[in-house]
Amino acid sequence: MGGDGGLSVTERTRLRRGKEKGSHRREDLHAVLAGGFLCHLGVVVDGAPMVVPTVYGVEGELIYLHGSVASRSLVQAPGAVVCVNVTQVDALVLARSVFEHSVNYRSVMIYGVPRLVTDPDEKLRGLRALSEQSAPGQWDYVRQPSRKELAATSLVALELTEASVKISAGPPDDGESPDAELGLWAGVLPIETRFGQLAADPVLPDGIEPPAHLTERQGQALGR
Amino acid sequence: MGGDGGLSVTERTRLRRGKEKGSHRREDLHAVLAGGFLCHLGVVVDGAPMVVPTVYGVEGELIYLHGSVASRSLVQAPGAVVCVNVTQVDALVLARSVFEHSVNYRSVMIYGVPRLVTDPDEKLRGLRALSEQSAPGQWDYVRQPSRKELAATSLVALELTEASVKISAGPPDDGESPDAELGLWAGVLPIETRFGQLAADPVLPDGIEPPAHLTERQGQALGR
Repeated sequence: MGGDGGLSVTERTRLRRGKEKGSHRREDLHAVLAGGFLCHLGVVVDGAPMVVPTVYGVEGELIYLHGSVASRSLVQAPGAVVCVNVTQVDALVLARSVFEHSVNYRSVMIYGVPRLVTDPDEKLRGLRALSEQSAPGQWDYVRQPSRKELAATSLVALELTEASVKISAGPPDDGESPDAELGLWAGVLPIETRFGQLAADPVLPDGIEPPAHLTERQGQALGR
Repeated sequence: MGGDGGLSVTERTRLRRGKEKGSHRREDLHAVLAGGFLCHLGVVVDGAPMVVPTVYGVEGELIYLHGSVASRSLVQAPGAVVCVNVTQVDALVLARSVFEHSVNYRSVMIYGVPRLVTDPDEKLRGLRALSEQSAPGQWDYVRQPSRKELAATSLVALELTEASVKISAGPPDDGESPDAELGLWAGVLPIETRFGQLAADPVLPDGIEPPAHLTERQGQALGR
């Protein structure tokens, strides 16, 4: 276990390779999680892995996951560990050799046993965190969940405890290698993810303007 | 099994929910795979799921995966199934209620038993497919792998057979519901991923210009 107030280090989250890129600092974990809203959830179903993309929300030291997959695995295998990965890709790293090509990214891996959220207050808080993660401002703008909708929604919580962060950044590694003599261009090609322009529902009546919390996101970068 | 020349339908890839969004058509599968280069690979390690982001390449009806994770799972559990997910997020779907909020996406799920590529010709072909997937043109521009580098690289192949595609597109569903009377704005907020401007390695000597196959990608959209 980490003794520095950081994240717990287990056999699964010990950083094996590229150690210089690894981190068990809570602030790095939260920075990566804050930059996204989609994770890839891994569960074991009938002995085989299943990887499902799904939205998440963060509140304090918990990550909330929505939908049926995590809760299905929870029902089928109570106490079973799941794995959550959140990755943002920042650039292609274009080196002087194929072998040194890579990708700059920030990636979080979380292991834990999901807990089904049954307390009504926590369920509302968790769903709000989930909604705010991708669409901040919408929870207070639109109609909030009815009792029936809440009952139809399953939510699970995972503690941000057994987790690790990997960050790869910077130029290619071969600038001082013999390959530098080849005279080839090398560097990075950044990848940028942005919100575009709002597109109204075709059946929206004339005269209903989008609220400021939506218009101000147009053109904004994600992932940071 | 699909009888229409499409992908094989098993218990795992049968589309359970949101059926209208599902597809087992090969062209849909290839369209989604062609729009990306990063997948999330799920394997089972010591009974727990592990989800790892990794690059992929497609050649014909094979997907090639790079690196050590797939081959580690292959060595630890020969014959074990892995799961590969490739997802592109296209928009936030902003409805009139929290409950109807969703995400527009295109997602591919592939199951299979990885095969370690040992034939030298196939290994070169697979690595080239992998390189071209993210950085087309670089394989022929930079130094190709040496014998030693090839030996240090592991590559696995998965058949694109047991696979499914899910595509979610369009405006929110509640335009004709009682919530439409609330007079709220509703629609979609697109998410666009683009290549930015090339940034040269800081140690690159003056006078080496980037080749056309790189400069022409600047500003280009990914994921389509």
